[in-house]
Amino acid sequence: MDEATAFAPGHVTAFFAPYPDRDPVRAGSRGAGLALSDGVEVTVRPADGTGEGSDPAGDAGLASLELDGVPAGMEPVERVLAELNVAAEVEVFSDVPVGAGFGVSGAAALATALAANAAFELDRSENDLVRVAHAAEAAAGTGLGDVVGQFRGGLPVRLEPGAPGYGRMDGVPARPRVEYVSFGELSTERVLGGDLDPVREAGEAALTRLMRAPDEAELLAAGREFAVEAGLQVPEVAEAVEAVEAEGGLASMAMLGRTVYALGTGLSDAGYDPAACSIHPTGATLRPEE
Amino acid sequence: MDEATAFAPGHVTAFFAPYPDRDPVRAGSRGAGLALSDGVEVTVRPADGTGEGSDPAGDAGLASLELDGVPAGMEPVERVLAELNVAAEVEVFSDVPVGAGFGVSGAAALATALAANAAFELDRSENDLVRVAHAAEAAAGTGLGDVVGQFRGGLPVRLEPGAPGYGRMDGVPARPRVEYVSFGELSTERVLGGDLDPVREAGEAALTRLMRAPDEAELLAAGREFAVEAGLQVPEVAEAVEAVEAEGGLASMAMLGRTVYALGTGLSDAGYDPAACSIHPTGATLRPEE
Repeated sequence: MDEATAFAPGHVTAFFAPYPDRDPVRAGSRGAGLALSDGVEVTVRPADGTGEGSDPAGDAGLASLELDGVPAGMEPVERVLAELNVAAEVEVFSDVPVGAGFGVSGAAALATALAANAAFELDRSENDLVRVAHAAEAAAGTGLGDVVGQFRGGLPVRLEPGAPGYGRMDGVPARPRVEYVSFGELSTERVLGGDLDPVREAGEAALTRLMRAPDEAELLAAGREFAVEAGLQVPEVAEAVEAVEAEGGLASMAMLGRTVYALGTGLSDAGYDPAACSIHPTGATLRPEE
Repeated sequence: MDEATAFAPGHVTAFFAPYPDRDPVRAGSRGAGLALSDGVEVTVRPADGTGEGSDPAGDAGLASLELDGVPAGMEPVERVLAELNVAAEVEVFSDVPVGAGFGVSGAAALATALAANAAFELDRSENDLVRVAHAAEAAAGTGLGDVVGQFRGGLPVRLEPGAPGYGRMDGVPARPRVEYVSFGELSTERVLGGDLDPVREAGEAALTRLMRAPDEAELLAAGREFAVEAGLQVPEVAEAVEAVEAEGGLASMAMLGRTVYALGTGLSDAGYDPAACSIHPTGATLRPEE
């Protein structure tokens, strides 16, 4: 095989309790979110174009990366290729906006791991590949919980933080329609540079609340409460959430992005012009061979 | 909601090491298999047609069951509804033959659990519902590993036996085309009524072999070796496997059924007239609301 393609869903975090750790496979977060049918597709091909195995000579890593056709840098993707010890060209296409709370960097890392395993015939297991992508994202400081949620799909719940073998997952068994509107980027680093204790406390409370009655309405309500308690809500998002609620809908803020998401037709009903998608039941997966 | 529908993939077991246990959530098997895009769809509706919650008065359970339009009995489905304490009518449609090694009873139990949770708004988590279906199947004696494989999807690997919270899963990250031919039923009870030690030993050896290089070819080769070592291969299946191999393909026997499956176009190439499908990436899932 000379190239391979994999898809990973966008992941909106409803709420989270961060648990950083010096060991990136143990680092992670408790929390819950939504894996979306809109996501990220990654194609990986060997840098020398031959498709011949890995290159232990020292020039493993990212030969080139294009994001939606434009040269770009993505540290988690670089780290994945270095860890897998392969030299590759990578093309990333994203249905969802970058830097707006959809976990694009985690999705790109995870899809890169799955595609590279196939393109280079690395014979890693799924857990191994998820572990590599999770650790790459944690080490890069771009996320703590998206990768494991994006691998599970559905409405993933992170019961315990960390990569497979360390963390523990569950899920909310519902598949609602989702609408979203993004108002732009939000700096994860700036938000998480401060005191994490109030965020962690609000995230733990939200998880306890959700697992008492794990359905889609409770996921949104727990996320809504978390955004307020953790002090993370931004003005345009708060306004949109209130507009949806005024029409009887359920909405909340994507963590961490200047993005509002709603169940069903919540944002349309409130007069917004949202993107719409469904819940991605699969989680990240290699594209089947034609 | 007055009714809900869920799908669970058919699951072909490539090899297994059985670990029965008096506690049905701990009972299970190590092993690996293939989750197929062909599978089982289940629609659940409240027996009284009202959609009003559960009925703790004592008549919870299966009001009626139709399998492909014909009244039938399915003990694992009955046990799921009793455990969830709801009275329901259940319709099961199967793309794959019953009793031929596709895990139809496990798929029916799992899809029933997911659909009943939605139809009766039970607010169980995904792990809870998988646990209920796994325990129902183990208690009924109809299977030990299909349910957890059917929930994970892909090419699921059971690293440790048991329901979520007890067992541990991994997966082979490949999505090949699959062909299969069934020559009829095989009695699981008769095969597994004897000495399990040789089966367990062959299953453990196959799992060790697979995890050294977890790809699709190794899954088939490990399954092929297991069938011989465990003494489970039946004549028509052995003949078909050899015919596929004579054409350079990879095939093995579905455990436990009088069924041969092959990668790619293996069975077509050998002159058989197989059913064809793909690997189901999702695992069992509630059908999205329209």
